[in-house]
Amino acid sequence: MGALHEGHCQLLKKSLEDGNQNHIISIFVNPTQFAANEDLGSYPKQVQKDVDAILAIDTNAVFFIPEVSELYPCKNKNMVLPPKKMNQLACGLSRPTHFQGVLTVLTKLLNIVQPDFMYMGKKDYQQLQIVKNMCKDFFFKTSVIGVETVRQNDGLALSSRNAYLSSTEKQKAPQLRKALLSLKSQWEKEENTSILVKKFKNALKNDFKLDYIEILDQENLQKIELSHKACIALAAAYLGKTRLIDNIELPPRKIPTKETNE
Amino acid sequence: MGALHEGHCQLLKKSLEDGNQNHIISIFVNPTQFAANEDLGSYPKQVQKDVDAILAIDTNAVFFIPEVSELYPCKNKNMVLPPKKMNQLACGLSRPTHFQGVLTVLTKLLNIVQPDFMYMGKKDYQQLQIVKNMCKDFFFKTSVIGVETVRQNDGLALSSRNAYLSSTEKQKAPQLRKALLSLKSQWEKEENTSILVKKFKNALKNDFKLDYIEILDQENLQKIELSHKACIALAAAYLGKTRLIDNIELPPRKIPTKETNE
Repeated sequence: MGALHEGHCQLLKKSLEDGNQNHIISIFVNPTQFAANEDLGSYPKQVQKDVDAILAIDTNAVFFIPEVSELYPCKNKNMVLPPKKMNQLACGLSRPTHFQGVLTVLTKLLNIVQPDFMYMGKKDYQQLQIVKNMCKDFFFKTSVIGVETVRQNDGLALSSRNAYLSSTEKQKAPQLRKALLSLKSQWEKEENTSILVKKFKNALKNDFKLDYIEILDQENLQKIELSHKACIALAAAYLGKTRLIDNIELPPRKIPTKETNE
Repeated sequence: MGALHEGHCQLLKKSLEDGNQNHIISIFVNPTQFAANEDLGSYPKQVQKDVDAILAIDTNAVFFIPEVSELYPCKNKNMVLPPKKMNQLACGLSRPTHFQGVLTVLTKLLNIVQPDFMYMGKKDYQQLQIVKNMCKDFFFKTSVIGVETVRQNDGLALSSRNAYLSSTEKQKAPQLRKALLSLKSQWEKEENTSILVKKFKNALKNDFKLDYIEILDQENLQKIELSHKACIALAAAYLGKTRLIDNIELPPRKIPTKETNE
């Protein structure tokens, strides 16, 4: 989507570390993943700055920067629909057509580029798992690699949307991460998911307007029941008009999880 | 879908004529293109006979005959949705989830096989145009080739579903083709689409239960208005419990088409 920050650069660095030599960087603000009431029009664009940032890491990088009319050549448009069970929760509830836009544009990009690997950040964790599932389901030859979220020193996950934050909001923003870290610290001790969720909500209550907090199975994003599997806490919250998302991985625990998180 | 007849064999013969040497034949009765009330359970299966018929034409043909669990490996399933404007008419009205099943399984097959060409019959004309549109829209490298419908001497289009017809019905079945030929013979003289449709309905009225008759733009399947473009008449009708479809191409005509066909 462009408006690159260190989190995007980390994807390229990780791929170089993994020994890959030929990199194709797509920069495309995809209209089909924005709803009418969302920030397509104001989404930050800085293509030359993005190109320079990539070339500073890999002088051999190749860029694919299509026009909307090039990636959407047909008047009659097809759409890839994600599975309801992975879409109708977390970000998919507040952005019901978002992931179909993501899968549709990725189907096009994967067919055009045909990469061996695609590197995606773990900040958009639901997106990562939905994309991995589609690639398996549709037999794309591309392996999807999830890369750790890059954070500021104060813990705030890097995001192109952080540019929308006022200076006061910037001071408050790291609270989202702190509340997730606090949840993780209680994960092994507190078996009641509802209590974990309640404590998380209390930690955020004044400055943020919570969109969701969900504790789910890491792989299939389903609600956990008596699970010993690796889990993930996904959260989204508004700080002023800016929607921030973050998540934290929760290791398999010894005590079973007795309740779902609603 | 297997249950091969001479129409399927013609696809392979045409590809050989076109100079292609390596053929992969998929035989798979795709569950996602059948609705719950349709004939998935009774759809004819005759795999060994199918294989023999193909090998009689091309001894080098390779077969891909997957299990349902192989082509649908994920519990959480993605779907490719066709464009509403191409889906919500003709067969798409009476079978609203049919074409999404077709596009979904073809996305899988195209990714697995990655063919240069895919040969499909013109009998399922709406399917052919929807698939061509998806391949362009999603940048599949595969070119889709439409092949002429193969018919019995009496004009009946070959179809695996003809096996359902009783001997009386078999005698009546060619009437669908005759009514389409009659429509075509009046195409240049009669500019009123409604009259053409009415005459077609009269020609069928006793033996068949008409599902639809549509006169559409050949390429984008939209209703025609004052069009000098090549058109197509698409028809589906029940003979007893068996649903038959057929179509006839209508050349661009000198007189403009003044009305849509409803």
